[in-house]
Amino acid sequence: MTAERLYLFDTTLRDGAQTPGIDFSLEDKRHVAAMLDGLGIDYVEGGYPGANPTDTAFFADAPALDARFTAFGMTKRAGRSADNDPGLRALLEADADAVCFVAKSWDYHVRVALATSNEENLEGIAQSVAAACAAGKEVLLDCEHFFDGYKANPDYALACAKAALEAGARWIVLCDTNGGTLPHEISAIVAEVARHVPGERLGIHAHDDTGNAVANSLAAVRAGARQIQGTLNGIGERCGNANLVTLIPTLLLKEEFASRFETGVTDEALAGLTHLSRGFDEILNRAPDRQAPYVGDSAFATKAGIHASAIVKEPETYEHVPPETVGNRRRVMVSDQGGRSNLIAELHRIGLEVDKADTRLDGLLREVKRREAEGYAYEGADASFELLARRALGSVPHFFDVDSFRVMVERRHNAVGDLVTISEATVKVRVDGELLMSVGEGNGPVNALDMALRKDLGRYSPYLSGLELVDFKVRILNGTTAATTRVLVESADETGERWFTVGVSPNIVDASFQALIDSITYKLLKAGAPAGAP
Amino acid sequence: MTAERLYLFDTTLRDGAQTPGIDFSLEDKRHVAAMLDGLGIDYVEGGYPGANPTDTAFFADAPALDARFTAFGMTKRAGRSADNDPGLRALLEADADAVCFVAKSWDYHVRVALATSNEENLEGIAQSVAAACAAGKEVLLDCEHFFDGYKANPDYALACAKAALEAGARWIVLCDTNGGTLPHEISAIVAEVARHVPGERLGIHAHDDTGNAVANSLAAVRAGARQIQGTLNGIGERCGNANLVTLIPTLLLKEEFASRFETGVTDEALAGLTHLSRGFDEILNRAPDRQAPYVGDSAFATKAGIHASAIVKEPETYEHVPPETVGNRRRVMVSDQGGRSNLIAELHRIGLEVDKADTRLDGLLREVKRREAEGYAYEGADASFELLARRALGSVPHFFDVDSFRVMVERRHNAVGDLVTISEATVKVRVDGELLMSVGEGNGPVNALDMALRKDLGRYSPYLSGLELVDFKVRILNGTTAATTRVLVESADETGERWFTVGVSPNIVDASFQALIDSITYKLLKAGAPAGAP
Repeated sequence: MTAERLYLFDTTLRDGAQTPGIDFSLEDKRHVAAMLDGLGIDYVEGGYPGANPTDTAFFADAPALDARFTAFGMTKRAGRSADNDPGLRALLEADADAVCFVAKSWDYHVRVALATSNEENLEGIAQSVAAACAAGKEVLLDCEHFFDGYKANPDYALACAKAALEAGARWIVLCDTNGGTLPHEISAIVAEVARHVPGERLGIHAHDDTGNAVANSLAAVRAGARQIQGTLNGIGERCGNANLVTLIPTLLLKEEFASRFETGVTDEALAGLTHLSRGFDEILNRAPDRQAPYVGDSAFATKAGIHASAIVKEPETYEHVPPETVGNRRRVMVSDQGGRSNLIAELHRIGLEVDKADTRLDGLLREVKRREAEGYAYEGADASFELLARRALGSVPHFFDVDSFRVMVERRHNAVGDLVTISEATVKVRVDGELLMSVGEGNGPVNALDMALRKDLGRYSPYLSGLELVDFKVRILNGTTAATTRVLVESADETGERWFTVGVSPNIVDASFQALIDSITYKLLKAGAPAGAP
Repeated sequence: MTAERLYLFDTTLRDGAQTPGIDFSLEDKRHVAAMLDGLGIDYVEGGYPGANPTDTAFFADAPALDARFTAFGMTKRAGRSADNDPGLRALLEADADAVCFVAKSWDYHVRVALATSNEENLEGIAQSVAAACAAGKEVLLDCEHFFDGYKANPDYALACAKAALEAGARWIVLCDTNGGTLPHEISAIVAEVARHVPGERLGIHAHDDTGNAVANSLAAVRAGARQIQGTLNGIGERCGNANLVTLIPTLLLKEEFASRFETGVTDEALAGLTHLSRGFDEILNRAPDRQAPYVGDSAFATKAGIHASAIVKEPETYEHVPPETVGNRRRVMVSDQGGRSNLIAELHRIGLEVDKADTRLDGLLREVKRREAEGYAYEGADASFELLARRALGSVPHFFDVDSFRVMVERRHNAVGDLVTISEATVKVRVDGELLMSVGEGNGPVNALDMALRKDLGRYSPYLSGLELVDFKVRILNGTTAATTRVLVESADETGERWFTVGVSPNIVDASFQALIDSITYKLLKAGAPAGAP
């Protein structure tokens, strides 16, 4: 049986731009379009030329893509002819391979939102599609509220689809605009529609308002649709659109779909998916979702417990797909339930090969358990764990010592009577036997301490120029401010690498200090800094 | 047609505890169990007594719940009798209403992971279930890898289910342990199994590795299963478990399910779901997912775009369910209607009845918006919100002023050469015009500040004798220690009441100070302390 072609349509730059809190710059749009093209997406919807300056500028200088660059817009206005509608003309003149029209297919909305007649809406669709075809565009019709419309008036919803089809539209896209349709409804309705519109011309546009956008897209394909519309990392209005980053691996790796369909995404591109997904979050300046299917940092992670030892024995039987197929990796984490086998697996992951019989493992395991009992959580702090492990195995050079530090936070009225808060830290460090004293100011005690600490580490300072703290989390372990405090620090450097370190103490400043020192030490270690003199 | 009962089983405290980066304290577990009970969950799985100190302690002092408190554990070991297996005995002796056994149902795993025979595994299931029934427990069997097992050897997978059923198990739970099974496979296999095991004794346990955990749960119910296992906010191993917070509204609000089934969740509890979901994230000390179905901050938000104006005209046709049914709210970002009525609703929630026409509402609304823009989150800080509201309505007496404070944290070697860290705070407070100076020591800066602050508040001190800080959480709002810090303080007093206050500042000590002051003021307010002289 020869595979059928399944088309992927990305609307990250159009529907995705409707996400609260997300605003793409022109540069962002160019960057994302290139990422999508590299992934092998068939259609890249760039936006709505004319609707806002960014989209207009984006289409004014359209990117060169293998994908079909698509302009989104409305059908012609009621009461004027297609060639006399400036909005439509602008859309047809846009430098795009394809035009995706949005049109009402729910008679209720035709009446309420458009305040026009069913017939006029059908004419608008037919004339707009015909005009776009005449202008040499490939045409798609997004049938807004299709499923709600179909439930209310199936004949009219179908009439809208047929009008576009007969006018020459390549694709009729069934949109679950409110996102409230459930998978079994999608299956039933798409199957019905496929009896009137050939499946190879049907698309699905699902939203995640019930957490079923992915399932709805798969259900539509099984019912006959051959185009899936979605976004990177599932961004989009309200709860987001169907997540292409989740759908693509399922389509390429799961027998049911892989055996029946082919897409434009190669296995090589698939192996870059994790990187692409996290890179997209970088553009959005947000932390990647660690639990994201396939690409999340935890997607193939197992905390110790009943599964861990078996996973080390037979990983594939505990993984629905091999992590490397999507460019992700397996992680078996150390935790207070953990055992020797996890430890070896985790050491292997950080590049430390240790023989099962190595007696130093017992010492390390005891140390990990002792510290985790104190409140350390190494599963969230890879760098601190690596330092702990390398120390147990004797491979961490001694760089510097901190003799003492003092942090002061004062809130008072300043000379002009304003209430101000000042944070100041002094640190005494010993490098190569020489005592170095530094003072730093910051927005808070930890920031001040960080400033003072990195101000002068003698010959180690050059290694730290690119080091920055990107996040800082505090957890009180057993309630009340008198209890143990766990501080988790996330650091990054000029190479783009990120690492996590942990500190635990009854004192939040002390705990932060430990995490800061671990972060600096980890950076010096990976930069290959030489050991210091005692 | 009378509604069938559909049972909800929560495993937040067991499978959810497998989430990388999440580890519940004993207090967390008690708090979450109470939240779940209030929601109307049928089964609350507390953990695995004996597997780790926290779970053991939790079961040693089991919470009083309407829900069936459930202990998770393994079936008896191969090669020993049920009454001669200490692990099993500990499980049966646990103070729980129900026991959920996990057992292999994939012959491959019986061989590879258990290294035992198919027959011995069946015996282990039968004897363990029988022993638990004899011990007066309601028994559930989690069939690990059921779907993979069924695909490989349907007869054996079914044999495991039947063995438990015949031994008296109330529920046979089909687990998609690897999370890789797709909805259409779940539908087919559950329908098959339902021909051998009555649907009203079948449960589904889905994971989100393909982004289909919710769809798989719904598919299983449509195929006959009558118990859904899941977690709050979908936490869990790898990509997480089926998200009960997403499933519950679909089950209660969507015709297909609402008309056929009834659950233990009332409409009132459903209306508290958004609050509950965000409160749970506070316990996890993480930011709520703004795009979460139903409960996300953006779930009913629309950005200025093609829909906005129509939504203002006819909101319900653009919303798949009314936001207030799940305690969420509509946000149309171009026009801020709804803000006012939403505020009135929140004031009503804290017992402040305000007339719609009251002009003071505008000032309060502006203030709340201004502060939320700065990073305050009143969702998780009722007491601070109540103070803000009562101040706007002019009903908070003035108690005292803090002129200034200073906090010092010093780490050095003491007289005998040990490395010690000292935290000391001094505070200048004005009560009835009189200046009071206090100094306090603590395990950390916030603790020291709290000590100094409450040491001498003149005639207000007696009101504060029972006040204690039970938790303290910190979140950095935009990464890096130089960014804004939000501190959430949970307080309690001799009456057992708990309240949350919030402080925001670039400086963690300053933010903590604000939250502490709010907590003290709230306590004085509810204790009816008289206003102080200026």
